[in-house]
Amino acid sequence: MTISREGTNLDPWFGHYADRTSGLSASEVRALFAVASRPEVVSLAGGMPFVSALPLDTVSSSMERVMRDRGPAALQYGSGQGTPELREHILEIMALEGIRAGVDDVVVTTGSQQALDLVAKLFLNPGDVVLAESPSYVGAMGIFRSYQAEVAHVAMDADGMIPQALTEAIQSLRAQGKSLKLLYLIPNFHNPAGVTLSSERRLAIIDIARSEGILILEDNPYGLLWFDRPAPAAMRSVEQDGIVYLGSFSKTLAPGFRVGWALAPHAIREKLVLAAEAAILSPSSLNQMIISDYLDHADWKGQIDVFRGLYRERRDAMLEALEQQLPDLTWTVPNGGFYVWLTLGEGLDSKAMLPRAVKELVAYTPGTAFFADGSGRGHLRLSFCYPTPAEIKEGVRRLASVVRDERELLETFHATGPTRIISLDQHVTSPPPGLA
Amino acid sequence: MTISREGTNLDPWFGHYADRTSGLSASEVRALFAVASRPEVVSLAGGMPFVSALPLDTVSSSMERVMRDRGPAALQYGSGQGTPELREHILEIMALEGIRAGVDDVVVTTGSQQALDLVAKLFLNPGDVVLAESPSYVGAMGIFRSYQAEVAHVAMDADGMIPQALTEAIQSLRAQGKSLKLLYLIPNFHNPAGVTLSSERRLAIIDIARSEGILILEDNPYGLLWFDRPAPAAMRSVEQDGIVYLGSFSKTLAPGFRVGWALAPHAIREKLVLAAEAAILSPSSLNQMIISDYLDHADWKGQIDVFRGLYRERRDAMLEALEQQLPDLTWTVPNGGFYVWLTLGEGLDSKAMLPRAVKELVAYTPGTAFFADGSGRGHLRLSFCYPTPAEIKEGVRRLASVVRDERELLETFHATGPTRIISLDQHVTSPPPGLA
Repeated sequence: MTISREGTNLDPWFGHYADRTSGLSASEVRALFAVASRPEVVSLAGGMPFVSALPLDTVSSSMERVMRDRGPAALQYGSGQGTPELREHILEIMALEGIRAGVDDVVVTTGSQQALDLVAKLFLNPGDVVLAESPSYVGAMGIFRSYQAEVAHVAMDADGMIPQALTEAIQSLRAQGKSLKLLYLIPNFHNPAGVTLSSERRLAIIDIARSEGILILEDNPYGLLWFDRPAPAAMRSVEQDGIVYLGSFSKTLAPGFRVGWALAPHAIREKLVLAAEAAILSPSSLNQMIISDYLDHADWKGQIDVFRGLYRERRDAMLEALEQQLPDLTWTVPNGGFYVWLTLGEGLDSKAMLPRAVKELVAYTPGTAFFADGSGRGHLRLSFCYPTPAEIKEGVRRLASVVRDERELLETFHATGPTRIISLDQHVTSPPPGLA
Repeated sequence: MTISREGTNLDPWFGHYADRTSGLSASEVRALFAVASRPEVVSLAGGMPFVSALPLDTVSSSMERVMRDRGPAALQYGSGQGTPELREHILEIMALEGIRAGVDDVVVTTGSQQALDLVAKLFLNPGDVVLAESPSYVGAMGIFRSYQAEVAHVAMDADGMIPQALTEAIQSLRAQGKSLKLLYLIPNFHNPAGVTLSSERRLAIIDIARSEGILILEDNPYGLLWFDRPAPAAMRSVEQDGIVYLGSFSKTLAPGFRVGWALAPHAIREKLVLAAEAAILSPSSLNQMIISDYLDHADWKGQIDVFRGLYRERRDAMLEALEQQLPDLTWTVPNGGFYVWLTLGEGLDSKAMLPRAVKELVAYTPGTAFFADGSGRGHLRLSFCYPTPAEIKEGVRRLASVVRDERELLETFHATGPTRIISLDQHVTSPPPGLA
């Protein structure tokens, strides 16, 4: 046998990949990161926390202390589950959201993204279904797809996922013979929708999941970053056996450490540790010890207050700019986190509009990134986490100008009847109607 | 539907796991790490590098400089592929083993273990076969199993994998209708076998893999840690399209950073980046920048020489002790790396002997850990990387005493005829023959 060179694909290993590899594709967010990194572009696209607000000297002191006092241990392999010291700290942090757990229940991971990946690996066979909000986090859907699972979106409104819609989705999917494995939720300050699941709905959804035998995956990277009032208690605070909870230091401290965690029921946690060890042997001892030292020595709760104030100011700047610049559109009003979800008027297409927006030096994430089926063209996600209030206002001003231009174009087309489709093979010698 | 509680399993999610999860099991090395961490035990079991030999002040200075000059970037998310600066450095390091590549061909990962995991995820369908040396690295086999692939061992001798045995294994597996996806090799200072694949065999094996259309996975964490003469040039130095090469900073610098890499042909590399982003978004910016700074400012080649001298001295101590204490056994003589592979005499069982060895305060890794089918009881792996020469001598002395006791026991049994098998269900009221 020689290496197959099937079709016109230039990859000599084309026929050799696993079936699951066909689910890998470059996300729209990926292309955006490249575009939006040009300094003249105001990026309302990414989800980068504003780490410059950290006390860098304090973080440096923690590094220095760790290297001075425990250098060889910090540079060595560690436990696959994470250091007991950091896991103790993680319990303290989760207690702020009402969660009580034991230090053995926590598994430290390479960001909570890796925890998502490991849970998906443990539970998802090809064809299994993950229920998720509509829209949902692009990075989670990428993982589910990479294990050949399907994502079924469940409707949400300003109070988060709608329990009745969940019940209906479950019934409908079961009637189709689908295997429902996970219910993936971001209850607080949702990415991308910006909304928060109400207390009542948390309880209702827990009841549904329990009676239907579906494991809840509660992803909570933003919970402590509230603006006007604290988020409701975590779902994990009222239900233990049916929830794997994911937390992260990426938003409350810094993503550059790549340290997050999973809190899981005992039997699942045992398997998570084995899966984590298989994947990376152990998380970085150094980074775990730096974070532990920071939590021991710094005013970390005060620092989270600093972040809350900073992001609240930016959220306010964005909402104010939207009201001034795009008063006839609608958007969600987040009480925390990083994101506003904007609904465009009829006929506008956030994906098609993006290149024109970037030409006008503003970037956003089109709604299509957050739906497994490619829908969402009528929406877009605006991030207020990284740019300054002044940049946010300028960004929204540019966006509004792009939206106005799009509408004008749309009205011109509309006035001359439906657009004629021009085939790419067709040599156009005269301009199509409406462009003349 | 309610949560299934099948059989006697107490895990309420018992029936919900993915099929692949059944392949997850605690390795024997795992249990050993716990046992061998007691200070009175001389551990010849683990593979921990001796990081205390690092210039800790120099590493600290790099951290300080990174935080002072580029703190916010170090604490931020980064590129999924890794920083261009570190990838440039990685090219320099690989050039020491004859490899020429472009900076775009490198993907930085959470240790080379994650690179192994991602390559396995990209290529392995359930039932696919990975060809590997006999024995092979326990952590790689754990990954292959976690994607439901089978490992087929290929015979090796003091010059590494035997090309003729590889050809025969391929023919036999193809005749059984198996899908052969990867040929996993550790050509230099093999873990656990301690041997090095000869130059001639590297070429022969590349030829076989090329003509059979099997992708080579060249895992080379130890290549720069040679003792008496440099290792032959990397296989990747003579073949580009058919090899994914894995490298690591864990042995030449420190495992606590969890930074390794893959070097892959273009089309595979593109998929690797997508898989890496799905799994962890991006590797730690902080750790990559610290390593880059260290490579810019420290005498890192001199430091590798320090490690080479240190490990050579420990290897010599181990070989000398084996010659003195266990002259009638056989073992491999490594020219680099961390491990000696010991063959026990007839009838001895390294797995059964381990509890008695630990009782005598010496630990090793039984050969069974390194075979997918649980064979290997006649062998064990001895590590000389972490203990001092004096500890190594004492450890081998204790091991020899355990081996002597085992032999005496064996001879006693032998003298009274073959051991009678006692069923666990049978109530034994009198001692079996030989124990009376």
